[in-house]
Amino acid sequence: MHRIDCLQYCNWSEKIFRQMREGGVDAVHVTIAYHEMFREMVANVEQWNGWFERHSNLIFAGRTGDDVRQARSEGRTAIFFGFQNPSPIEDDIGLVEICHMLGARFMQLTYNNQSLLATGCYESEDTGITRMGRAVIAEMNRVGLVIDMSHSAERSTLDAIEVSSRPIAITHANPSFWHPARRNKSDDVLKALGESGGKVGFSLYPPDLQDGTHCTLDSFCEMNGPPAALMGVSHIA
Amino acid sequence: MHRIDCLQYCNWSEKIFRQMREGGVDAVHVTIAYHEMFREMVANVEQWNGWFERHSNLIFAGRTGDDVRQARSEGRTAIFFGFQNPSPIEDDIGLVEICHMLGARFMQLTYNNQSLLATGCYESEDTGITRMGRAVIAEMNRVGLVIDMSHSAERSTLDAIEVSSRPIAITHANPSFWHPARRNKSDDVLKALGESGGKVGFSLYPPDLQDGTHCTLDSFCEMNGPPAALMGVSHIA
Repeated sequence: MHRIDCLQYCNWSEKIFRQMREGGVDAVHVTIAYHEMFREMVANVEQWNGWFERHSNLIFAGRTGDDVRQARSEGRTAIFFGFQNPSPIEDDIGLVEICHMLGARFMQLTYNNQSLLATGCYESEDTGITRMGRAVIAEMNRVGLVIDMSHSAERSTLDAIEVSSRPIAITHANPSFWHPARRNKSDDVLKALGESGGKVGFSLYPPDLQDGTHCTLDSFCEMNGPPAALMGVSHIA
Repeated sequence: MHRIDCLQYCNWSEKIFRQMREGGVDAVHVTIAYHEMFREMVANVEQWNGWFERHSNLIFAGRTGDDVRQARSEGRTAIFFGFQNPSPIEDDIGLVEICHMLGARFMQLTYNNQSLLATGCYESEDTGITRMGRAVIAEMNRVGLVIDMSHSAERSTLDAIEVSSRPIAITHANPSFWHPARRNKSDDVLKALGESGGKVGFSLYPPDLQDGTHCTLDSFCEMNGPPAALMGVSHIA
């Protein structure tokens, strides 16, 4: 078994890289763009390049599944880049492949708000995947950038599952039956995700949790049952 | 023997890719930046990504020496990206590695004029490699971006040969004894280049040629003799 953190953001430092090793974390999906445009995202890659150089005994740039296995065998943590928002591709579909060349492996089509590609979970109207969104999904499928719908609205998420020729991910969200946060996902979404071969990673972000910061470990673990029954346990990361 | 075009710029098209195959060209060092800043250079990479996708039977993105051998065995042409100017790294040393991640393998430190890094061959004063230039050379050595001094001034070129821990290239220039264009190189430069393990590629650009567009093949071939004696033939590409 490999230990993978499906989505993480923090004030990265050598101390945290050491803590990841102490915790036996083989791979982390690291957020390198929240609302950054292309050039700002590149500056974040530059910062990570410096950390890869200075802390090569602890971390390295992950690109493929084999890198997770390599990380485990070498006792290091593979860092996979992801965007919580499609802002780094701006309005230029050619940047999808450029971002992939720079190491990005996940991209959310929306972050709460409407984007050029899809509708976020906080909008009152969900118009689904846009025309550009369909083209970008095809390009992401082609180059190997995983579609992440963690912060997307219901119809957009169901659309993305259908439009994408490759399985998609919901890297950080919980079932809405357990806690009805806008970001959390309906049974319909979880079922369609599982049937399409996609995966969900559950979230420890307090607003996504039943009882917020008072959520108990028992409650969080019990939450796993119904989605496991609905999707099959292999679709829960 | 492999057939390599050490520096090329043109109005690229499928027709030219086919002509390269007809000519048995295994690899080309393609100029993807003249005076472009970072984002403009990225747009050029995007354009090449499209050509790689549409003409994968003719060309592919070259990254290493093995790719030249692969190109020959597959009957395709490996395309290596280079900059004639350091403008794509702007004033940000972190962009050296980013450009390498995007496939750049050659970068001139100057294009005729003074840059942040060194002096070009048309300046009246040649102050050699700058402070930033020394740092960028070290970074280029680290990531594997070849230093190209084709358009640089004499002292800057001799400095670069000395400062760089890896051999450098002069991808397109001729000996100045043969034709005293400002871009062409003195015996001192060619000798130091050869002794350091570097390579020179001769130029067919008319302003670099004896008698310009009237230069004869005989004259061009005879030009090769003295540098071959000075440097050793293995240092002439």
